[in-house]
Amino acid sequence: MTSRFHEATARARDVTERDRANAETVERMWAADPVLVDVRPAREVVPGLTPETILTSGAPLPWNEYFGGQRSGIVGGALYEGLAADGQEADEKIRSGEIRVAACQDYGCIGSLAGIYTGSMPVLVVENRRGGNRAYCNLFEGKSPQRLNYGVYNEQVRETLRFLNDLVGPVLGEAVRLAGGIELGPIVKRALNMGDELHSRNTAATLLFTRELFGALVELAQRRHGEVRELLDYLAGGDYFFLRLSMASSKATADAAHGVEGASVVTAMTFSCREFAIRVGGLGDQWFRAPMPDVEAKLFDGHTAADIEYMGGESVINETVGLGGFAQAAAFPLQDYQGGSPERMVETNLAMYEITVGEHPEYRIPYLRFRGIPTGIDIHRVVETGITPAMDIGVAGRGGGQIGAGTLRAPIACFEAAVEEYERRYR
Amino acid sequence: MTSRFHEATARARDVTERDRANAETVERMWAADPVLVDVRPAREVVPGLTPETILTSGAPLPWNEYFGGQRSGIVGGALYEGLAADGQEADEKIRSGEIRVAACQDYGCIGSLAGIYTGSMPVLVVENRRGGNRAYCNLFEGKSPQRLNYGVYNEQVRETLRFLNDLVGPVLGEAVRLAGGIELGPIVKRALNMGDELHSRNTAATLLFTRELFGALVELAQRRHGEVRELLDYLAGGDYFFLRLSMASSKATADAAHGVEGASVVTAMTFSCREFAIRVGGLGDQWFRAPMPDVEAKLFDGHTAADIEYMGGESVINETVGLGGFAQAAAFPLQDYQGGSPERMVETNLAMYEITVGEHPEYRIPYLRFRGIPTGIDIHRVVETGITPAMDIGVAGRGGGQIGAGTLRAPIACFEAAVEEYERRYR
Repeated sequence: MTSRFHEATARARDVTERDRANAETVERMWAADPVLVDVRPAREVVPGLTPETILTSGAPLPWNEYFGGQRSGIVGGALYEGLAADGQEADEKIRSGEIRVAACQDYGCIGSLAGIYTGSMPVLVVENRRGGNRAYCNLFEGKSPQRLNYGVYNEQVRETLRFLNDLVGPVLGEAVRLAGGIELGPIVKRALNMGDELHSRNTAATLLFTRELFGALVELAQRRHGEVRELLDYLAGGDYFFLRLSMASSKATADAAHGVEGASVVTAMTFSCREFAIRVGGLGDQWFRAPMPDVEAKLFDGHTAADIEYMGGESVINETVGLGGFAQAAAFPLQDYQGGSPERMVETNLAMYEITVGEHPEYRIPYLRFRGIPTGIDIHRVVETGITPAMDIGVAGRGGGQIGAGTLRAPIACFEAAVEEYERRYR
Repeated sequence: MTSRFHEATARARDVTERDRANAETVERMWAADPVLVDVRPAREVVPGLTPETILTSGAPLPWNEYFGGQRSGIVGGALYEGLAADGQEADEKIRSGEIRVAACQDYGCIGSLAGIYTGSMPVLVVENRRGGNRAYCNLFEGKSPQRLNYGVYNEQVRETLRFLNDLVGPVLGEAVRLAGGIELGPIVKRALNMGDELHSRNTAATLLFTRELFGALVELAQRRHGEVRELLDYLAGGDYFFLRLSMASSKATADAAHGVEGASVVTAMTFSCREFAIRVGGLGDQWFRAPMPDVEAKLFDGHTAADIEYMGGESVINETVGLGGFAQAAAFPLQDYQGGSPERMVETNLAMYEITVGEHPEYRIPYLRFRGIPTGIDIHRVVETGITPAMDIGVAGRGGGQIGAGTLRAPIACFEAAVEEYERRYR
């Protein structure tokens, strides 16, 4: 009896401690103040990124475990950066350690699909003015299905990367510096009122961002007229430009919330070509891994489910802080792109409140009577309810390129593994 | 028996004729291709607008019937235009006919609130490339509650009007001409996917329009840098700039559909300070009038229902073609501005399908599974169902200025009067 009572008391104290730690975690997320402060080559700004390092998405794997688009993306990165003359040399140098393959998220970076970073690539530099930490994301390669981050490397991809390197990075960087930085929080807040969930839909956010930059671009056009026109064409060329900013913004937000002792809130989610994995605020840098889940996808014409290929992806950092699949009810136009129905989107969105710690005080969903987005995925709630995070993702095809989009539910196994480790560490 | 049979046959033929006429009417609405082609002083482009003419909203009234904000707006227009030295002189000259007060819609113009047009004011020139007809709207006066179209005329209002006249009109006009015109249909279509219903919410449309103009503005900044900056500040200063364009676009659309023999579809709706009125496609230029309905408004802090004052308004031309209150389910963020709930907005929107002839093939509502907006209000359906058009409107206050926003249902009496005239004419 006494022993049981003590056990219950200890458990209650643990839960209270956990609640406190989780509350601090989501409060840090809510307090984040992400600002785009610069655009620079990765080697100049990403701490620890040597010229021989290639970053890629996902919890790191041994080199021989990478396959398909992610593997060819990494090799493509080595060729683009001039680290190897051909695929075989790249493979040998990676095996020998002369070229280092590492995980984006360990460098404050966040990978789209295969998520290939090399030293010369321009990155968006997002600073969390509240926490002081920084996160980085490289640039949208445009609407062509042929992109390095979809595992394709050829002359066309190389030209696009050069264009990003020679024009978009420098001109955008100068405009951003001229503007004194662009605050991203107000853009995210407004875009949620304009049909975006900031993951698979960034239409409004891209427009709002462009408007914030326009004054600086008009200034800059005095000196660099032709380049500004090209940059504007690039910004207007797709509605996904802002995705890289929402990813960097969410990464800066999640990183600021990581590391609270006793917290059981997820602070990172990621895909490699083989696995899904999560990190937890109170469990250090360990990745909890699970095999790939199934995706409910709407594929572009001419493709079938057999064409789907996983090649990594970290844009689910947006879901980690309550956007994307956690804000579907803000983005009904997404039906068109990733399937589903309004009722299903609302249902999915509401389910996310069951597994999260709180509701964002600023980022709100109009259809849900301006309820704040569900923030802070608690691994215990996921395991207790069996409800796993919903994620809006782009779908890659075998042989490269995007072939569709869909909603995916995270596999529960990694949350179970995390709970087990949590119990081991904190009980 | 035979007589009854003949009567029924004749009725069926009439209904078939009416259906055909109504189908043609809405097909003209759907086919409209509104393009902003220029911005010019009204006297240069509005046919028949003499220097001594002042246009105002609503079915025309004798001068002594105008009161409150609409009356002071008309007098303000006379003073601004230099047609009179003071209010008394303006009053005398209007009485004597030296100054002519006329209805906006008879001149292809469309009035916001009191809707005051004088010859020198710059107007947006919207051409329906399909029908060849043109419509005009003057410019948004900015966010201050003190505006001529809300019945206020003072030094501040005068300065704003001069700014529109000296800077916004000329610079915007040059940019529009440089851009070769701006197509408005694609903007309306996209904005419906981005939280706008194009009447009380034009946030996305204003951004999309600005983006379309960016290229031309960057060109223009080479020569008129300071002015372009000022124009940009104006465009970014409120989310309502596009409302004047949606109004002109809807007016050009509705006018193109007017005049089909036998049509019972509404082609104009309007308020004066005293009355609500409609025109019907097959019933010529006659206005069918009814007393003012009640409004369900959300008022800005510090105001009560007793402060509400009608002073005219023709932005309900948007509802006439299926936007605004007919597309509320595209604009859930409006709750914040005009009250209501998502469920109520959906319910109101669905009810509009009961009184309209068809669904727009291009302008669609994401939440309603991309159902086309309900287009073409049939006076017979309104009278049969008792469902009257829902309209999203800004609410003006006694003594001038905007004090809130809300949804208003049109009074049924004008539809009944129109049906009576329809029966008289076509039976």
